Amino acid sequence: MSRAVVLLSGGLDSATALAVAQRDGHEIHAMTFRYGQRHAVEIRAAQRIAARHAVKAHTIVEIDLRQFGGSALTGDIPVPKGEAAAAAIPATYVPARNTILLSYALAWAEVLDAGCIYIGVNALDYSGYPDCRPEYVQAFQKMAALATRAGVEGNPVKIIAPLIAMTKAEIIKLGRSLLVDYALTSSCYDPGADGGPCGECDACRFRLKGFADAGVADPLTYPARRAARAAT
Amino acid sequence: MSRAVVLLSGGLDSATALAVAQRDGHEIHAMTFRYGQRHAVEIRAAQRIAARHAVKAHTIVEIDLRQFGGSALTGDIPVPKGEAAAAAIPATYVPARNTILLSYALAWAEVLDAGCIYIGVNALDYSGYPDCRPEYVQAFQKMAALATRAGVEGNPVKIIAPLIAMTKAEIIKLGRSLLVDYALTSSCYDPGADGGPCGECDACRFRLKGFADAGVADPLTYPARRAARAAT
Repeated sequence: MSRAVVLLSGGLDSATALAVAQRDGHEIHAMTFRYGQRHAVEIRAAQRIAARHAVKAHTIVEIDLRQFGGSALTGDIPVPKGEAAAAAIPATYVPARNTILLSYALAWAEVLDAGCIYIGVNALDYSGYPDCRPEYVQAFQKMAALATRAGVEGNPVKIIAPLIAMTKAEIIKLGRSLLVDYALTSSCYDPGADGGPCGECDACRFRLKGFADAGVADPLTYPARRAARAAT
Repeated sequence: MSRAVVLLSGGLDSATALAVAQRDGHEIHAMTFRYGQRHAVEIRAAQRIAARHAVKAHTIVEIDLRQFGGSALTGDIPVPKGEAAAAAIPATYVPARNTILLSYALAWAEVLDAGCIYIGVNALDYSGYPDCRPEYVQAFQKMAALATRAGVEGNPVKIIAPLIAMTKAEIIKLGRSLLVDYALTSSCYDPGADGGPCGECDACRFRLKGFADAGVADPLTYPARRAARAAT
């Protein structure tokens, strides 16, 4: 059984990418990063997803991107809400994040002799992030082939981004066909004290639109519904 | 004054690369990694070099590559000595190391709005490391241009490897012309309890040959000389 390293953030996309890697027949080695996020909700989500899919191994790597600053996701800048979230490159962009995450995945893949790395990046719904585009993924793969022992020996690692050209609705339909339980995932950039989604950041907005477009109910509970429930 | 991020390991090559970046007129932001090495001697060396060259900033980033295993430099495998050190890809190769280090440098460069990253890799004397070759450095630069906000906006960061085609003797002569104090540097993969070099690992062998070829005395004290001094 060939091995695959899967970058697992705990969100909707990475949970789906993990299910695709499993469908493709790989032994799954999931990798999650604790990188000075405002919240650890998504790490707990990653642990629940890894357990549900019975992965071979799940490693949580501690890295500190706070020392560089420059992103709303690492705490220096407020998370934009509503229409303000629709900037060209969002404030939630973390400098060189996917490059750092893929570099660690590359190191682990080399030690494991894994032939591929799965990453749940998506170019259509998040076109503001430069490191979510197909040309970026291809350039990383070319670089990786030159960087590693496996590449030099003629077995370069493949970087597989199965969701890159899909809409959020298509991703949700694919994931449901692969039995992904989206109740276990967390997408919100600014969750509440109970870990629930805010419903207003761009991650929540894309997620809600994706479920609406797919004609499926999002299993998570959002503030408006929480408030409605509290009022009854 | 334009900013440059310089990867500074504390060894002979990175100290020289830092001096080149300074000669090129940049404000220097030096970056050193504590990555589960067997010893912290080289981190102290990096601090001495940064102080001597009066850099603008010096950050020491904690990363843990031990969890991946697979290298003599992170403690799982003995450091090879003598002729055994001359394998095609040495046991001291750390999986994807330069890719991880350059990725962090890329993040810091983006936050600082630095136009370039200097790395002291060298293809001639360390041809066994895949990630020390010019084609690797070029591929990283291409990937970086696609990965970042600066790249998208038309100002991609340059990866500058000024020593890549130089022999160790040429590097030493260049460094001396730029007033690098090689007494402050540490190159050994397996230093003694006093922090002194072993004289037998491949890093010591390349260094000693470099000084011999350059016709210059290495200011460090090696075991044979220490033993001779102790005997008198």
